[in-house]
Amino acid sequence: MKVNGKPTRTIWPAADGWAVEVIDQTRLPFEFAVRRLETLADAATAITTMQVRGAPLIGATAAYGMALAMHADPSDDNLKAAAMALKSTRPTAVNLRWAVDDVTAQLSGQSPNARAGVAYRRAGEICDEDVAICSAIGDHGLKLVEAAWREKKRQGRVNVLTHCNAGWLATVDWGTALAPIYKAHDAGVPVHVWVDETRPRNQGAALTAWELAQHGVAATVIVDNAGGHLMQKGAVDMVITGTDRTTAAGDVANKIGTYLKALAAHDNEVPFYVALPGPSIDWTLASGGDVPIEERGPEEVTRITGRTAAGEVTAVALTPDGAAAANPAFDVTPARLVSGLITERGVAAASRAGLAGLYPEKAER
Amino acid sequence: MKVNGKPTRTIWPAADGWAVEVIDQTRLPFEFAVRRLETLADAATAITTMQVRGAPLIGATAAYGMALAMHADPSDDNLKAAAMALKSTRPTAVNLRWAVDDVTAQLSGQSPNARAGVAYRRAGEICDEDVAICSAIGDHGLKLVEAAWREKKRQGRVNVLTHCNAGWLATVDWGTALAPIYKAHDAGVPVHVWVDETRPRNQGAALTAWELAQHGVAATVIVDNAGGHLMQKGAVDMVITGTDRTTAAGDVANKIGTYLKALAAHDNEVPFYVALPGPSIDWTLASGGDVPIEERGPEEVTRITGRTAAGEVTAVALTPDGAAAANPAFDVTPARLVSGLITERGVAAASRAGLAGLYPEKAER
Repeated sequence: MKVNGKPTRTIWPAADGWAVEVIDQTRLPFEFAVRRLETLADAATAITTMQVRGAPLIGATAAYGMALAMHADPSDDNLKAAAMALKSTRPTAVNLRWAVDDVTAQLSGQSPNARAGVAYRRAGEICDEDVAICSAIGDHGLKLVEAAWREKKRQGRVNVLTHCNAGWLATVDWGTALAPIYKAHDAGVPVHVWVDETRPRNQGAALTAWELAQHGVAATVIVDNAGGHLMQKGAVDMVITGTDRTTAAGDVANKIGTYLKALAAHDNEVPFYVALPGPSIDWTLASGGDVPIEERGPEEVTRITGRTAAGEVTAVALTPDGAAAANPAFDVTPARLVSGLITERGVAAASRAGLAGLYPEKAER
Repeated sequence: MKVNGKPTRTIWPAADGWAVEVIDQTRLPFEFAVRRLETLADAATAITTMQVRGAPLIGATAAYGMALAMHADPSDDNLKAAAMALKSTRPTAVNLRWAVDDVTAQLSGQSPNARAGVAYRRAGEICDEDVAICSAIGDHGLKLVEAAWREKKRQGRVNVLTHCNAGWLATVDWGTALAPIYKAHDAGVPVHVWVDETRPRNQGAALTAWELAQHGVAATVIVDNAGGHLMQKGAVDMVITGTDRTTAAGDVANKIGTYLKALAAHDNEVPFYVALPGPSIDWTLASGGDVPIEERGPEEVTRITGRTAAGEVTAVALTPDGAAAANPAFDVTPARLVSGLITERGVAAASRAGLAGLYPEKAER
């Protein structure tokens, strides 16, 4: 989507043809900084430090990480080591494993001196495929936004609440949860987005608010506590979030706090949609209770990063010295609370049957 | 409760016998600072800037504000003006109006030269009455904590989740939601508190975490998004929150986000209790939908105050320049989600009948 008026992706090959460039998302919303990745370690660090984040972008970065590893050393040993190193960066993201396995499968039958070329080409394809998938999610979700707009008799604007960042910054372009919003905005539907700030890492306040504003979409930041009240007051027409992992039964593992918004949506009869690319579905998981939940460091809770009046971006402490903190990164929203799953193939009911209808070739296995 | 091992209240008469001293809660958790109030304006400012906050403490401060006004000018005109000024400081807190009306009623029949003495005496009584009420809330709530402890067969610890700060810092002493926790801790029941940080003003991370630690109670700070997940995982035995205003039907207006925790508690069959002093019940309100909700400034959302590595307490920006923000300060939790109301007279069902049973003299009117 647009940055300073110019169409931009989150990851792209550098001008020299072998390095890879990404937007350093830890610097947003205060600075638009591009980071150059030259090695497998650079790619792994970009993932672990969340310079890149969001399941699809993590997958794309991991694919390019395999290419960077093959550029340095295309041996069988390094192929294995690179795959293992990348898979260990984030335990919950299924796209990461999918992308690494996909590239590995393409490379295994190749001679070492052919591997780098194949890996770069495949990484580029994975990016383009992600853009196509997100664009299709946007097209299917657009129909839901348009329906909400018709239901309001085209008065006012369609108010969509979203949690965390499942925008184009979380993917290669378009985003998942925000793709329908960009499509609606571009189609002239007046959309307004309630942006949950999404503590502890504040991806909503920092990233979603930034990318929506850059593209010209009306948005209002709220604390994570406010969404239920807004729904009680009729100020939310629909919720759209992304997901890191969706089970075969339609349970959704997404950023911590998603479950609370789903409960509020259900209690107030507000439709609650989850947008996801097919590859993020984990067909091996029967139930959301089986999803491993990443416990991140307490300092994300006890501190927060922001910009001082002097313009310095710094972390400040929020809690008394010595305070303990817990930091589960995701929660699971049971399928019963999900109105529909917006995929690149259409909108499915959040159920085994719903997903099987759209992905029969996966569900049969 | 204890600060640095010494029993402390939140408001007390200064040694000179006419000024009033309060803990400046905007400096917590980084500094324990005492602020001296000498005028009506000082008292009003302490309330509006939230140096004092929490319905009962606001009421006590307003009562002393009336005394400070009478100390300066005990005329009929000033009596009226002081009452009006104090009532306009915070629109949602019913204790504020109650305390001001109570002191005004005591003073109206008095000659001007008697008013200051009567006002100070009555303000002191209001403080002592609040301590007695909170202590009684603690005694009744203690039975619920002890019951949870027995139900766990005295294994592990009783995990209580709380939102915002309804501790002794919000009252004169003991607190409301935290009074049962202090009583349980003092009685030797191993209690552990999940402390919601409570954006935007972070009263949980700053105040609840501080006061629990000062008194020696085990506590873990979490972001507001995490409580639902902890309940899904069985890590919460009960929720206890405070309330700014309770309707005659048992609907509860409390800090924004309380409703989301009540939904999660209901979905996971975790008891959800609300602790309140009788005077905070608004018998004139039939339904929670009638409670006026204060909309506070957007800068509370777009900025946050913390301490830098250099030790400076400062506000940092969290959102892109120019981002819009909305900031409703309270939400309403419907009575159907409340397991019980813990009052100084006992635990009532959250219903008109339940409250009328404990407060027949109020309900009859």
